[in-house]
Amino acid sequence: MLRLTGLSAATKIALARTPRAAAAPVLRAHAGAAMRLVSTLTAQQRESLLEPLLSADAAWRLVDGRDAITKDFQFADFAAAFGFMTRVAILADKMDHHPEWFNVYNRVQITLSTHDCSGLSTRDVTLAKAIDEAASSAGLIWA
Amino acid sequence: MLRLTGLSAATKIALARTPRAAAAPVLRAHAGAAMRLVSTLTAQQRESLLEPLLSADAAWRLVDGRDAITKDFQFADFAAAFGFMTRVAILADKMDHHPEWFNVYNRVQITLSTHDCSGLSTRDVTLAKAIDEAASSAGLIWA
Amino acid sequence: MLRLTGLSAATKIALARTPRAAAAPVLRAHAGAAMRLVSTLTAQQRESLLEPLLSADAAWRLVDGRDAITKDFQFADFAAAFGFMTRVAILADKMDHHPEWFNVYNRVQITLSTHDCSGLSTRDVTLAKAIDEAASSAGLIWA
Amino acid sequence: MLRLTGLSAATKIALARTPRAAAAPVLRAHAGAAMRLVSTLTAQQRESLLEPLLSADAAWRLVDGRDAITKDFQFADFAAAFGFMTRVAILADKMDHHPEWFNVYNRVQITLSTHDCSGLSTRDVTLAKAIDEAASSAGLIWA
Repeated sequence: MLRLTGLSAATKIALARTPRAAAAPVLRAHAGAAMRLVSTLTAQQRESLLEPLLSADAAWRLVDGRDAITKDFQFADFAAAFGFMTRVAILADKMDHHPEWFNVYNRVQITLSTHDCSGLSTRDVTLAKAIDEAASSAGLIWA
Repeated sequence: MLRLTGLSAATKIALARTPRAAAAPVLRAHAGAAMRLVSTLTAQQRESLLEPLLSADAAWRLVDGRDAITKDFQFADFAAAFGFMTRVAILADKMDHHPEWFNVYNRVQITLSTHDCSGLSTRDVTLAKAIDEAASSAGLIWA
Repeated sequence: MLRLTGLSAATKIALARTPRAAAAPVLRAHAGAAMRLVSTLTAQQRESLLEPLLSADAAWRLVDGRDAITKDFQFADFAAAFGFMTRVAILADKMDHHPEWFNVYNRVQITLSTHDCSGLSTRDVTLAKAIDEAASSAGLIWA
Repeated sequence: MLRLTGLSAATKIALARTPRAAAAPVLRAHAGAAMRLVSTLTAQQRESLLEPLLSADAAWRLVDGRDAITKDFQFADFAAAFGFMTRVAILADKMDHHPEWFNVYNRVQITLSTHDCSGLSTRDVTLAKAIDEAASSAGLIWA
């Protein structure tokens, strides 16, 4: 039985690398080939895609000792924080790419990395942008 | 076994009046006396509290044949719609006052009325305002 | 501005047929060709796939005047009902196939039909089974 | 701007002790006096209330260097894990007592402690039991 207790950086790396043996077969079949082909960002992609996320405005940060990015969000209250998380949960599951995230009350810390390539891939860039969009607006078109 | 099939206006009225026999005792104990004391809006409250919600800007509408208000929301996609619903769900349960709501894809229709007094009460006004606030912003303080 | 007020059967049919103009382009690109090829269940599929859902045990029912199925669920409380809805929301969005659903307190009514073929397809059967599984267990593997 | 990056035990203790300055005033007014009166579990309560949670069956564990309990859950997939989290989110916010929790894919780690008394209180026992109940059943009454 895996224990996640410490939540140290080392534990979280180990966690992210653990094979998802329990994943629903249908999910794996769906993701299939695409998941095996993912690769870490090239030097050029890090400049063009990753750097903008690390700007003061976007506020993502590199994680020490691991090829991953992280960002902290604070909302008006718990309901706003968890509503945001639910929106991201739906988007993330559709992408077959799940965040590592921590929440307490109105705070959410999200860490992104791609376990299939043990580092940052374009999936993390795509999910980071979707997360930022979800945090900045409720997405209302009309009411 | 209650059937909600038709979802006609009549069905929904009946639904709202059905005793919540299955409600968790702890919830009822918590709500207790307060729930029994709720009363419908006075004529003065309808003018000062309800009218603003019925303005073109706020876009709530009175329901035909029933003392209730309803409003339609449309979001960017399903994830945004359901994230909004989750935020409202948390706020509503805390108030012990639950919406009747319908969703399909990016649309959410919310109807509010107070079954303890079989009509609109100040609770509906409070919840309507909280709903409008949740729809207009993701509630981010900083990121 | 579309009004969903009445929620009559006719309104809901119209609703299901409304083009999802607001759908995120990425979602449509993802779903793409597959969505256009969906067709209603054949007579044989209705016997082998649909009939089991309509059994007394499974408790789905055909909707009057429309090729759709519906089912009512009642949970211990609102939190249980909405937790179930969230699980289904994630599964449904991943399938690009969304339920029409109504909730008030601990009750959830779900109606399934496929708007791309204006009737029941295998997608509805797949989603109905996933919904029944989500309602019958919290999905815990170990704790 | 607070940074939650490391997620070390020390960081999490600091986090739990940070005044919730952003809390909605209405929430604070509601919680009010009760929150100030909360105290850590007595030796007797630790034996009668806490010990059962620490049994092999219940599987909660004490956290090193902090008066808190933690437990790991693993679900069938992400949708089941997040549906469970949503149910707990609603229950927790109603109790004005929020978990510190971490999720990645189908795993959820929950840590409970009461920041108003900087240690374990009866609130943690109550929430732990509600969490275990939510993990063990979807809460369906009838379908």
